[in-house]
Amino acid sequence: MLLDHINQPNDIKKIKPGEYEKLAGEIREFMVEKVSRTGGHLASSLGTVELTMALHLAFDLPKDKIIWDVGHQSYTHKILTGRKEGFDSLRQLDGMSGFPNRDESECDVFTGGHSSTSISAALGLCEARDLRGEDYSVVAVIGDGALTGGMAYEALNNAGRLNSNLIIVLNDNNMSISENIGFVSRMTTGIRTAPGYIGLKEGVGSALEKLPGGEALMQRLRSTKSSFKQLFIPRMIFEDMGLTYLGPVDGSDIREMLRVIKDARRMNSAVVIHVLTKKGKGYEPAEKNPEYFHGVGKFDVPTGCAIGVKAPDYSRVAGAMLCKMADTDPDVVCITAAMTDGVGLKNFSKKYKNRFFDVGIAEQHAVTFAAGLAQGGMKPYVCIYSAFLQRAYDQIVHDVCIQRLPVTFLIDRAGIVGSDGLTHQGILDIAYLGSIPGMTILAPKNAAELVAALRFSEKFDGPLAIRYPRGEAYRGLEDHKAPIETGKAEIICRSGAASKGTAAVIAAGSCVRDAVKAAETLTAEGYGITLVNARFLKPFDGELFEELAKTHDRIFTVEEGVRSGGFGERVAAWAEEKRLPAEVEIIALPDAFIEHGCTELLKKRYGIDADGICRAVKEAFGHTEDQH
Amino acid sequence: MLLDHINQPNDIKKIKPGEYEKLAGEIREFMVEKVSRTGGHLASSLGTVELTMALHLAFDLPKDKIIWDVGHQSYTHKILTGRKEGFDSLRQLDGMSGFPNRDESECDVFTGGHSSTSISAALGLCEARDLRGEDYSVVAVIGDGALTGGMAYEALNNAGRLNSNLIIVLNDNNMSISENIGFVSRMTTGIRTAPGYIGLKEGVGSALEKLPGGEALMQRLRSTKSSFKQLFIPRMIFEDMGLTYLGPVDGSDIREMLRVIKDARRMNSAVVIHVLTKKGKGYEPAEKNPEYFHGVGKFDVPTGCAIGVKAPDYSRVAGAMLCKMADTDPDVVCITAAMTDGVGLKNFSKKYKNRFFDVGIAEQHAVTFAAGLAQGGMKPYVCIYSAFLQRAYDQIVHDVCIQRLPVTFLIDRAGIVGSDGLTHQGILDIAYLGSIPGMTILAPKNAAELVAALRFSEKFDGPLAIRYPRGEAYRGLEDHKAPIETGKAEIICRSGAASKGTAAVIAAGSCVRDAVKAAETLTAEGYGITLVNARFLKPFDGELFEELAKTHDRIFTVEEGVRSGGFGERVAAWAEEKRLPAEVEIIALPDAFIEHGCTELLKKRYGIDADGICRAVKEAFGHTEDQH
Repeated sequence: MLLDHINQPNDIKKIKPGEYEKLAGEIREFMVEKVSRTGGHLASSLGTVELTMALHLAFDLPKDKIIWDVGHQSYTHKILTGRKEGFDSLRQLDGMSGFPNRDESECDVFTGGHSSTSISAALGLCEARDLRGEDYSVVAVIGDGALTGGMAYEALNNAGRLNSNLIIVLNDNNMSISENIGFVSRMTTGIRTAPGYIGLKEGVGSALEKLPGGEALMQRLRSTKSSFKQLFIPRMIFEDMGLTYLGPVDGSDIREMLRVIKDARRMNSAVVIHVLTKKGKGYEPAEKNPEYFHGVGKFDVPTGCAIGVKAPDYSRVAGAMLCKMADTDPDVVCITAAMTDGVGLKNFSKKYKNRFFDVGIAEQHAVTFAAGLAQGGMKPYVCIYSAFLQRAYDQIVHDVCIQRLPVTFLIDRAGIVGSDGLTHQGILDIAYLGSIPGMTILAPKNAAELVAALRFSEKFDGPLAIRYPRGEAYRGLEDHKAPIETGKAEIICRSGAASKGTAAVIAAGSCVRDAVKAAETLTAEGYGITLVNARFLKPFDGELFEELAKTHDRIFTVEEGVRSGGFGERVAAWAEEKRLPAEVEIIALPDAFIEHGCTELLKKRYGIDADGICRAVKEAFGHTEDQH
Repeated sequence: MLLDHINQPNDIKKIKPGEYEKLAGEIREFMVEKVSRTGGHLASSLGTVELTMALHLAFDLPKDKIIWDVGHQSYTHKILTGRKEGFDSLRQLDGMSGFPNRDESECDVFTGGHSSTSISAALGLCEARDLRGEDYSVVAVIGDGALTGGMAYEALNNAGRLNSNLIIVLNDNNMSISENIGFVSRMTTGIRTAPGYIGLKEGVGSALEKLPGGEALMQRLRSTKSSFKQLFIPRMIFEDMGLTYLGPVDGSDIREMLRVIKDARRMNSAVVIHVLTKKGKGYEPAEKNPEYFHGVGKFDVPTGCAIGVKAPDYSRVAGAMLCKMADTDPDVVCITAAMTDGVGLKNFSKKYKNRFFDVGIAEQHAVTFAAGLAQGGMKPYVCIYSAFLQRAYDQIVHDVCIQRLPVTFLIDRAGIVGSDGLTHQGILDIAYLGSIPGMTILAPKNAAELVAALRFSEKFDGPLAIRYPRGEAYRGLEDHKAPIETGKAEIICRSGAASKGTAAVIAAGSCVRDAVKAAETLTAEGYGITLVNARFLKPFDGELFEELAKTHDRIFTVEEGVRSGGFGERVAAWAEEKRLPAEVEIIALPDAFIEHGCTELLKKRYGIDADGICRAVKEAFGHTEDQH
């Protein structure tokens, strides 16, 4: 096995050129086998094996810096930098991250996860290098999907004035997570359909153009009218931005890529190398279904079939209900940002094609576009993961809340998301949305309440956020269906008489499930527990909470979000000012970024599961675990 | 006066075409005269008088919708929609807003203030119109500066798939607030230097192209090689995005603009009309110094000279200190987003040209670019107004705080900003930054402490935010200069014995000034006041606050920011959990957007000035005003 010889950065340089293809095959086999057991982002990494090999052959890591946009495609990079063993624990608690991570390797320059950031970061590194008189190469690898994010355009715009070398690899697999849109897509589709684009060896051609005599040749090539637009538009656009454009290059041809990279390194400017790759390449099920294998669970290698049946998740529940609402209300429209399937809108997107908008990786536009729809009389639902909605904070403030428009945010993946980890945890939304005047935040306790919350949203006239976690939709407590009323909580059970003391546990959304278990345990142990489904995190049910504070010894809040600025802090601060008799204690995530790992294990680690609630209650009453 | 006949929307249509020029002159005279007394955004509005007149002549308001990006240029629109009288109270408390405002007029579709949002909002309106089968025109007016914001690109990217009419007016004055950069600037500069661009009547040309026989003409024009690139690059870029491009058009020629608008309305697509305008047009001092007259205070009309001398503000203090730091530390770099002068960096930008980066209206890129600089070993200072930094929330989370990079944010205009109002108030940063793990927030009490905070930042190894308000730098309390230590507050004075009770007032940053006055008043009235400069809003000085809670009857926090998720809530929640003896009371802005008006009056209205602090303290002790 060639792979046996790859144990640290630059080991790939010992491989003979004639064996590159064999190594690429071994890497693919290794990745498929490992990811089939752990799940992970397979298709992007399969598509960029040769590209990554070429970069590692051309550059000297960690001296040279490669920044992987998003980081879905970084598995080959991990393999080539001495992290093969890590794949056994990929995305597991205390195991290897599925994204580049500065704490994991010197070769990971930036911890990644969100889209469209790499060119900005790379440009900063270049300027720092030049100002400090240092000498290393900086490479940003960005997909065509990530190029739909406005931030990438801001960065390209600025990269035009760089007078030293920056290499931007446009990894063009003609596909972002969902269907790609607009400019980038048109541009790159044009390229692919232009006859004989590879034959023209444009990459080398452009390099030639810079050399004496080369220009005349290129002028001749340019006069080939038929393919003019397709071939030269990307060049013109990039070059008009002040960037040098090389390409397109065949992303499976390592030698060709090495030649182009060599040319690119010689230039004192930002250079775009346009590389054409194929998502899922080399593993037939992933080639056929790259969207499914973008982020995949465990699967059977020969067939590509999923192992284990997934229970319906909150995304499906929301998607089904939105279809139902759209059936009777012609004003219902859905907007997402390149996560149609992830947020459960696949059916909606087919059934209501003209009322469905996937705007690409463009959360900012998604939100303000929804504001426009609302202003025009529609009832828009913006379906975006909690961690990615962060990018539209200003638009939520400026274009939705200041205008008091009835835009409903369906915040999927709110709370701990599990194996995607650090950059994907949806732990900030309660805090950042809670800071915005006029925003109402609702967190349903189970699947039925998500449905009810959507019904509630139909008549709600203002900005509304409905947050729910990733994964299986909770089906418990289905008998508890108090009508939803703005700012009103729901009592699940009232405490009876109790020997050890009484406590009201006010749980937010997904935490109700754990609080139910905790309440059972605590009641059995002699505590009097009143369990409340907070439902509204802002505004919260002050009337009920005040009554609870007067009739219980203690109040506990439980939420799946950071403590600072969260629900618990709002309740505790309010109680402090009200001088209520029962003290409030906050059970929440610490003010820290949360690593990857199984959601249940992470909840346990950070004390927001049933055990954690029990422990907090007992400690508050002075009954520590040790006393038992 | 023709202006006397303009009293409601569409009145302009009664003006004879031969008198358009006269009306434009009257509008300019009116604006200059009014703004000279109130201050305001003059130069942009002067530049778009004819453009706005053309739009009002072509469209039927409020049925048709015009969305003004940012809104700096909306004064003529206000005049033409029956709001002439409003100019006497422009930007004053309870007077007319300086930006479009939905609450002010049916003709203002979106309340504005932040950049690059108009195309997204307009696109939403178009889709709503089409889905509802309604019939009206939607126009977005966006400047070339706003086009550097990534969000505008996201919107253009999506506008390409619209199959109905949307008119995007690119108001190209070849200048954003600071120097414009990159793509847009190159593109439009090209246009301006292309020989005879107006003569070609490109706008009509393009319309012609769509008609039978027109294409051949355009093909001939296109073959004119010399001006090919300059003339056709913008067309190609926009058309490659799926947009129709008309222009460039002379923005002082109303009849020509009306002709092009007529053509544009006929198309079932998004159409870009490229209009060339001149910022400050018609008022010589503003033409000569459009940057100064972008947002201007009171001035003398004949000379254009400012009336009243401005005391040095915090921006100047920060800018001067950054220069000083850069003198001795070659790693200091400054980044801003089209507000070089506003944040006090004009001198820095000249003195340290290669260590200064104005990235254009691109806050997202600014922050991640700074992260790259920090990662490369530099010491970056990101200087952005509080309200605009909102747009980079995700980048602060993902690219700075997750990476634990030593990026310092100098948050100017933090707190109430006064006459710019609603969209510009810097009242959310304490809350949104406070929610981010790993962020340290420092609020200096006066000019000297801002300087000390900058010195402190030099050695600080992590994300740091230093917030300070707009306007005159406080020069009081200069004897109080306790060394800055992470998480430590500063005691300004300790309470003596007191008949009416003791209180510790913990004031954040700019509020120390008012708290000093309040402390004097309250002490004179028989209260024992300990005055604390909180300095660090996160992490705060728990040790000191605990001691204060044990030695005083009450604790008050004071901050210039929203209550929800703010400093006071964090302190109160902490006190609640700690079960400290003294209750905490929060003095902060309510959870509401704050209107425009004089800063002092707004502080009074919302009870965060000296009187408000006195009132809160007395009420807490049960001594209400009425009892005196």
